[in-house]
Parts: sequence; C-alpha cells; structure tokens
Amino acid sequence: MAASGWKGFFLSAFDYKTEKYVIANNKKVGVLYRLVQLAIIGYIIGWVFFTKKGYQETEESIESSVMTKLKGVSFTNTSDMGIHLWGPEDYVIPPQGEKVFFIITNFIETPNQMLGYCAESIKVPDGRCRQNTDCPEGETVLAGHGIKSGRCLKKHWNSTGTCEIYGWCPVERVNQCFVLPRVPLLGRAENFTVYIKNFIRFPRFEFSKSNVLNTTDDQYLKKCLYDRTQHPYCPIFRLGDLVSWAGHSFQNMAVAGGSIGVIIEWNCDLDKGYDSCHPHYSFTRLDMSSTANSVTSGYNFRNARYYKNSAGQTYRSLLKVYGIRFDILVHGKAGKFNIIPTLINIGSGLALMGAGAFFCDLVLLYLMKKSTFYREKKFEPAKRRCVHDISFYDACKDFFCCFL
Amino acid sequence: MAASGWKGFFLSAFDYKTEKYVIANNKKVGVLYRLVQLAIIGYIIGWVFFTKKGYQETEESIESSVMTKLKGVSFTNTSDMGIHLWGPEDYVIPPQGEKVFFIITNFIETPNQMLGYCAESIKVPDGRCRQNTDCPEGETVLAGHGIKSGRCLKKHWNSTGTCEIYGWCPVERVNQCFVLPRVPLLGRAENFTVYIKNFIRFPRFEFSKSNVLNTTDDQYLKKCLYDRTQHPYCPIFRLGDLVSWAGHSFQNMAVAGGSIGVIIEWNCDLDKGYDSCHPHYSFTRLDMSSTANSVTSGYNFRNARYYKNSAGQTYRSLLKVYGIRFDILVHGKAGKFNIIPTLINIGSGLALMGAGAFFCDLVLLYLMKKSTFYREKKFEPAKRRCVHDISFYDACKDFFCCFL
Amino acid sequence: MAASGWKGFFLSAFDYKTEKYVIANNKKVGVLYRLVQLAIIGYIIGWVFFTKKGYQETEESIESSVMTKLKGVSFTNTSDMGIHLWGPEDYVIPPQGEKVFFIITNFIETPNQMLGYCAESIKVPDGRCRQNTDCPEGETVLAGHGIKSGRCLKKHWNSTGTCEIYGWCPVERVNQCFVLPRVPLLGRAENFTVYIKNFIRFPRFEFSKSNVLNTTDDQYLKKCLYDRTQHPYCPIFRLGDLVSWAGHSFQNMAVAGGSIGVIIEWNCDLDKGYDSCHPHYSFTRLDMSSTANSVTSGYNFRNARYYKNSAGQTYRSLLKVYGIRFDILVHGKAGKFNIIPTLINIGSGLALMGAGAFFCDLVLLYLMKKSTFYREKKFEPAKRRCVHDISFYDACKDFFCCFL
Repeated sequence: MAASGWKGFFLSAFDYKTEKYVIANNKKVGVLYRLVQLAIIGYIIGWVFFTKKGYQETEESIESSVMTKLKGVSFTNTSDMGIHLWGPEDYVIPPQGEKVFFIITNFIETPNQMLGYCAESIKVPDGRCRQNTDCPEGETVLAGHGIKSGRCLKKHWNSTGTCEIYGWCPVERVNQCFVLPRVPLLGRAENFTVYIKNFIRFPRFEFSKSNVLNTTDDQYLKKCLYDRTQHPYCPIFRLGDLVSWAGHSFQNMAVAGGSIGVIIEWNCDLDKGYDSCHPHYSFTRLDMSSTANSVTSGYNFRNARYYKNSAGQTYRSLLKVYGIRFDILVHGKAGKFNIIPTLINIGSGLALMGAGAFFCDLVLLYLMKKSTFYREKKFEPAKRRCVHDISFYDACKDFFCCFL
Repeated sequence: MAASGWKGFFLSAFDYKTEKYVIANNKKVGVLYRLVQLAIIGYIIGWVFFTKKGYQETEESIESSVMTKLKGVSFTNTSDMGIHLWGPEDYVIPPQGEKVFFIITNFIETPNQMLGYCAESIKVPDGRCRQNTDCPEGETVLAGHGIKSGRCLKKHWNSTGTCEIYGWCPVERVNQCFVLPRVPLLGRAENFTVYIKNFIRFPRFEFSKSNVLNTTDDQYLKKCLYDRTQHPYCPIFRLGDLVSWAGHSFQNMAVAGGSIGVIIEWNCDLDKGYDSCHPHYSFTRLDMSSTANSVTSGYNFRNARYYKNSAGQTYRSLLKVYGIRFDILVHGKAGKFNIIPTLINIGSGLALMGAGAFFCDLVLLYLMKKSTFYREKKFEPAKRRCVHDISFYDACKDFFCCFL
Repeated sequence: MAASGWKGFFLSAFDYKTEKYVIANNKKVGVLYRLVQLAIIGYIIGWVFFTKKGYQETEESIESSVMTKLKGVSFTNTSDMGIHLWGPEDYVIPPQGEKVFFIITNFIETPNQMLGYCAESIKVPDGRCRQNTDCPEGETVLAGHGIKSGRCLKKHWNSTGTCEIYGWCPVERVNQCFVLPRVPLLGRAENFTVYIKNFIRFPRFEFSKSNVLNTTDDQYLKKCLYDRTQHPYCPIFRLGDLVSWAGHSFQNMAVAGGSIGVIIEWNCDLDKGYDSCHPHYSFTRLDMSSTANSVTSGYNFRNARYYKNSAGQTYRSLLKVYGIRFDILVHGKAGKFNIIPTLINIGSGLALMGAGAFFCDLVLLYLMKKSTFYREKKFEPAKRRCVHDISFYDACKDFFCCFL
C-alpha cells in the first residue's frame, strides 16, 4: 500500500493536478462572487497599494542633528542694571546653539547678594515664626532660601515675623505679582530671528538630507524669512511668528514664560527621488495642560553670576529669568519599494479571496433553493459501491464501458 | 480551439464555480482537520488579536519634550569656601532644566589659580622626571595640567621630581583617596525634589499628552510626591528615591558620582481613549558595567569660575565636581485599529488553513489503510479511454457497476 | 430543505472532505507548476527567512544615554590674552559631557568691553550713514551691535560714516578675513581624546548594553585608542581621527569650524545572544550642503565672561569661538524570533502558491492544445438531466437517463 503510494506519488510528481470544479449555473451566487472578488482586488490595489503604499518598506527611526543660531539685539532699562544691552550671548541659554534653547524675555534681578544672615522672605510659609523655637537652628527652610539660624525676627513682640537665615542676602523678592514686570522687559525679542539647521538621515536607506535649501544664491539664506506659502523651505524664523503660529501671543507668553515646540516633519517617498523629500514645519505649545494650570504653565529658572571683590569675597547677582523655551522636535518617515511587504500584501489579499469563495459556498449550499442538489454535486461520496476489489472493479468498469 | 475557449470563458464568467470535494468518511482525519482548524482560529483570535493586538497599527516613533526643575537648598562647610549655601542655580548643571541634568553632590575646590609656573602633580606619570632633559620645553604633559618649561624640580639631587609646567597654578590636587571627602559634601541633596514635565506626541495618530496629572486642584502638584502606589501620576520625585528605586544608595553614589536613567514609558491603546494612556516610570543605573570597572563607574567633570583682580589679571577657582547625572529617557508605543494589519493577519491565517488541509491530505492519502482508494477518488484521471463520447461513458459506467 | 441541509451539515461535520483533483498528464504544465512552487519556497526560505530574518520581530526604537569626557591641554599665545592654557573646562562647551559637545579650535577675543557709546562697525550695512537722520535714535542696528543714539560719526564731512550706538564698546571686530587666524589657535586639539560612553536599551526585549568593552583589564580603557581594525570596541577616540574618518582635514575645519556626526549603530540579533551585539561606529560631516555654501558651513557662536571692577561696573570679555561640534547619533535595530511574523510570512507565501496554481490553470485551460478537453474535465456541469426526485435519481440516474 504505502509503497505503491510512494511509487505513485513520485510517478505523478510531474502530472499537473488541477482542482475539479462544479459549475453551478447560479447567476445570483456567480455575480455575488464576482463582486467579492472585485471588492478584494479594489482593496488591495486602491487602498493597500495607492493610499497606504503597501509596496513600500518604511523606516521611522530617523537620525537628526539640529543646530540653531539667533540674531538680534535689544536693551532693557531697569533700576538695578540701568540701560543694559542684550545680545544672543546673553539672552540665549545655552549659547552654543542646541536643539533646545531658551530665550530670556523677562527677569527679576537681585544684585550684589553675599553670604550672610538676613530675614527669610515673608512669602515662604515655612519661614514664618512667632518665637525663636519656630526656627530650629541649622534646619533648612522648605522651598526657602537658606538655613535657619535659630532666631525669629519680628517688628513687634506679638506680630508674625520670619526666621533669620544664613544664605545669600538680601533674599530674592519672591512674589511675582508685585515685582515681575507685566510688560516683558525683552519684548523686542519678538523680532529676533532663529536660523534652524537640521540634518537628517534614514540609516536603513542610507539617505541623508538637510533642511537648508540647496540654493546657489548665497544671499537667499541671508535675507529670507520662513513663510508657509512664499518661503516654505527657508530655515530662518521670526520668534514672534513661531509663537503666533502655535496659536499664542508672544507678548503674553513672554511675561511668565512658556515652551514652544517646533516640529520638523520629514515624510519622504524615496521612490520619487531626492528632491521630492522636503521638511514640513509645524508649531505647538508644549507646556499647556488642557485645564490652564498655574503649575504647569510658565517657564523660569535662576541664573547667577559670581564676582569677587578686591577683598576676595564672593558676591553674586541673581537673575530669575522668565522666557520661552524652543524645543525642535524632528520626526520622519521614509518609504521605499520592497518586495517583501508587496508579496505579503498580495498573498494575504489572495487568501481573502479564499474566504470569499468559502462565503459564497455557504450561500450556495445552504441558502439557495436547490442547495441540497448543489451539495450532492459538490461533495461526492467516496463509498465503494461494488463488491469487487479495486483492481478488478477498475478492470471491469472500463471493460464494460468499452465493449458494450 | 482558443476561440471557443475564450467564448466559453466569457459565457461562464457568471456561473459560480465551486470546488468539488470528495467526502472521505474517515473520522480520524476529519477530527484531525477540525483540530487543526481550531488551533489556527485560536491562534488568530487569541494570540494575534487579543494578546498582540494584531488588529492595530502601531507607532513607535514618539516625539518627546522634557522639562525639569529642582527644589532644595543645602550648605557645605569647607576650609576653602567656608560656609557656602547651594541653591539650584549652583548645584544643577545646566541650570535651565534639560532632560539630562547633573546634580553636584561632592567636589574638590582649587581656589585662586593663576597662570604661571609651578611643579606638575606627582600623580601624573608623564610629569615625573630625574633631570631637565626629561622635561622637553613646550611639550604638554600627557593627562597633565600644562606645558613643560624644560626644568625638572626635585627636592634632592637624586630623588624623583616633577617637571615644572606653565599652567594654572597651583595645580589641582589629583589623588582622590586623600582629598575627595568620603562623606559627600552635599549629601543633603538626597532630599531635593525634581519636577519632571514630559510632553509627548504620536505624530501618526496626532495624539499628544503630558505626564502632568490633569487635575483641577492647583495645590496637588505643589504638595504631592511620586509613589508607585499612592501617587503614580505625580511628576515630582525625591532624588534619594530615584537612586534607591534604581537599586543603589544615594550616599554611596554621591561620593564618586554616577548616572541614573529615569525611564518614562508610554504604552497607549488609543482605541481605549485619551484617559487610558498613562506614563509608567522605571529607574535604572546607566554607568555600571557588569564587572564593576573603575573607569566606567563614577561621574565627574571640571568647572571653572573666572575672576579678574583690580590689576586686571585673570584668576579662577576650579571645581572638580562629582555628582549624579539624571537622564530622562522617554519611549512609547501607541496602537490604533487599522484595517490593513487586521486583514493581513486574517488573510495569512486563512492561508495557514490551506496548509492544514494539505497536511491532512498527506495523512489521508499516504498513511490511512484505504489510502490507495482515497487517492483514486481524489485524483481523477483525465484520460479518454473510450471511443464513446464523454457523456455516454459517464452514463454507462455506473450502470454496469451497479447491475452486474 | 434548509432543515435537512443543516442536519447534513452537522452529520458530516467530522467527515473529512478533500478537494477533488483532475490529473492532467501534461508534463509541460506540471513542470511549470513545480518551478513556480520552487520559486516561492525559495523566496520564502532564502529571502524572507535568511536574508531579511522574516522570522524575527524587530524593534527600532532604541533608548540611548551618552556621556562624553575629553582629555588634553593646549596653550595659545595671543596679543590680548598672552600665553593662555586651555583645559577641558575651557574648550569644551558645555563642560558636563553631553552627547552634543563643542570644541573650541579658534576664536576672536574682544576684551574689556563696557556698556557705552561708540561707532558701529563699518561692516554692518545697516550701521552706515551719511547724516544723523540716517541713525534714528533708539532704533536697533539690524544684525548689528547696539541701539542707534541718533548721531552719525564720520571722519570727513562728505565721507560715509557709521552710526554711533549704545552697546558693548568697543564693538567686536566683525570681518573674519582680517582677524580670524588662518592657522587655528587651538590646532593642537587634533590630539585631544574623547571617551564616549553609550548605554543603550531595547525596551521591548528588555535588553540593555554599553559600548564600553566589558574587560577585566582596568588598564585597557586607560590606554586604548579606537581603531576600526585593531581596537573596534575601544570607546576612546582621537579628535583628529574622527574628522579624518569623516573625510575632512582637522586643521582646515578648525579655522572656521564645522560639525561632525559620530554614528553609533547597534544591529543586534538577540537570537544569537548578548555577546554578538556590538556597536559599529561611523563618521560623517553634518554641516555640508552639496553646494559648498558659506552660510551653511562653519560653526561659531559668542561667549561672554562678565567681571566687575572695584567701582562695581560690569565689563566683559567677549569670545567669538569657532570650533567643531560633535554630535553623537545613536541608532539601532534588534530582532528576536517571534511566531507572528513567521506565520504571517509562511501564510502569505502559501497564498502565493494559490496564485501560482491559478496561473498554471490558465495555461492549461486556455493555452494547451487539449484545453477544451481539460476544461470539460475540470468543470463538471451540475445539470439535472432527469425528472425523478433526487434520492431515486441517485441510484440509477444514468441508467434510466441513458437507456429509456
């Protein structure tokens, strides 16, 4: 048995065996089946291949390097500093042109601080006291400015005072409402420009490009200013525009600070070649929670400059700077024709045809009027209806067929 | 031939043709086939769709912007500095709140360095000498502090001395063992808190969210402290906790420094909606190689502050700072229902059914007792063995089989 | 009808039904079909599984943390500074060892600037004037150094002069051609070394590794120097090599500055285990557009150090620093066996076999000589040729049909 089985198997290896079909002259199901086929073919060609580019291998891990450079000067006139001129070396932090940079738009200066003893600010809850025991010596003031010295300083014996601390004195004026200028000191920063240089690379395709327009005109990059319509590929941006495109007012944001995201999107179809791959810029605010929350909005930090006087004592001027932080976020996708996704999509599409046929069979065999008949035609019983053994049966079958 | 072929082709275009099946009343194989079908269906539904969410299109390239802000003051008492108070503006480098920030926990100060001539440190191998020829003029000392002047300074004529160098004098005290305080000067940093603000965006789905709990209670974010169980969505962390969650001791790490990774993981099923997408925090040490290697562990760098004296000469105080670097690593995955992966998975699942049928055929046709018979039933020879036309052959075949 | 239909359906649920095939002894098509099968199997095994590792689930979103540390000292001798010694604390910006760091290789110093009134540089187009009305008071000079005071300073009544400005005086010498040293002041930086520590993690596979060779020999990392062939896993690089490997000359680049990308590529087959996952380094220049464009090449920024004199007045020394920015770009891919992509690939491969069979059918049924005959064999008409009801009809349908 098995032996002859294998024999037959090898003999027939090169006979082409084709599935036997039963023709059910049933136009209803026939049309239904064609519709299913059309739908599947339409889905594969129209949706998978045209809309979703299913024939492409895509790469989403983009390598990006960003350099920024700011231009513009402005001056401030404050009681402490007098007239002070601000250049990029002052108002950009850090100055070396990172992908994340911060522009000072407003500040509170506390000049000439020295280490010593003075009263904690009344605004610090933990710094208030009624008697000395409220100020245990050596304890740091929570969210405060120094170490408690053990004494409670108050104007009048039964008033509430503040602990004396050891720290940088005089302490910074805390409360924004009084001190923070409502008109940003560096409001002119709105007109500063930033030159964003972005170099990207898709490692899998070994494709790399820069967002700097590849122009022969040296002057273009010196004069141009980004504009969605006129100059979509000019890498120089006005700070005020960046903020307004993100849907906010620079002057309002400049008072307490904020954070803006500049999103550079690279969506490259590498089958179309190098030149069709362009950056697309969009702008969003990063520090807004949907409920305007005082804690989450605004951006500031402290920055100190240290000096030594002729006696060698250290003193500093403390700057609490408010400003706008720009964060350049680069992402991208590149697609290129590749045989594997193509065949996978085609293959699974064909498999869906099988599903279609199965569905139509169900209709034909169980929902049509003549379904019983179709079933019998489709499913041929493999019962042996003769007493003779196979070989003889085979023999006589043909014998009678041919000679009677 | 061909003509009639095409004619037939078009005529029969809307006849539904269904595959003809042979019913082998073989329960063994029948059951086997059903099991295979169940397995495949189970795999598709259970594994692909439920476990792996195979019906979703996933996005792994996350856009992230991180802001950090530290709170806390501490003081140190050293011979050089005296009592010195440290605020965030001093111990955080850089101060502007980047995603990677460094906290000074320990330091060696070399105050009042000036450019001039002095002896290289004995700890620098390349700086040792026995006579002047060992110190060629103008050559820099490898891993040293200056330029050799050509003279070899030694206490006694036949002792080993060190080259005289031009550099910032006096040179920094190199050897850690003697100078580096075993108890970190800024050990109190353990109680400092850091407020981590993380804004993410999945560009493909245009979904963006912040890790700051979207609460109406302004005070919550001022008071809360992250805790895996009580406050899993509070973005304020105690530095000591970050280190201990990473499996290390802050005080030990603070001596020679180290690096901690704060991993924020966003695993969002966008089919479940905005609110079910939460950050998950984990903590790891980044500078440990499996073999504790002196070179790879520890973290320090030098930081100099420059001053000018009344004569206009520059002098500086050099700070070799040891501390903990916190690196906030954000990654995430978002999934959303999409028809293509769904159909691809279904399609290839169906194709596997075909494989199952093929396998069962092999069993039926070559392993069953009656396999020869089944083969003959399944594979119908297309030989014309009779002179009569097909229909008559068909007709009389069964007749004789049944009645003789 | 339907009832009996369902009954039959359930009864026969465990009969194995196998497709009926027609054997067409047509070696041409038979061989063709085998070839198609071979091609598809070859594609699946050879291409999908071996070349593209289609049996693996891949992860491309890599988590990376980079630390850098520079070693080396150099000195400069300028008229303004005299002999000045540069250590990492001076020439590396920022000093704390980020993944993006900048090395000063050249600079223009403008010492002792104070806020006051002086003439704008003649190089600034917007600063030129013929009479005072060209210098409206309070207006900032575009791309200039200060605020116009309203006066036009000129040597001779009809010569072209420059506006007087309020700003940091004296103004920086703008024109590179005269001032910028053609031989970089810090050309010795070529021999500085940078130690790059990179820690990566593939979150999906929870696999993490460092690029620091996991050696027991402490000294190795102190002495080794990266070399593609001898020391491919040593994380210490000579700056000059980094630039030359990127295809440029350090000395040329050092004059006006530039930007170098150090690409660390992790391509890990996690099925092969931990030790077979190694970093691969490559080097590229980031600031070159294909047309050498003066605006896009070169890298510099300004850096100011502030001092106060005994009178408490602020003065500063401005450094326009040129140098090389190194940007360490990490990317990687990890693959690990996973059943889903495996089955998807197998499944869609099998589906393609169906396509192959369909194609061979077309050949057989419409291109072969005996195609009509094959069609008749393949497509069995399901016409009822008798009036009798099904069950009796089955018994002796053909007999009566043919002989009565």
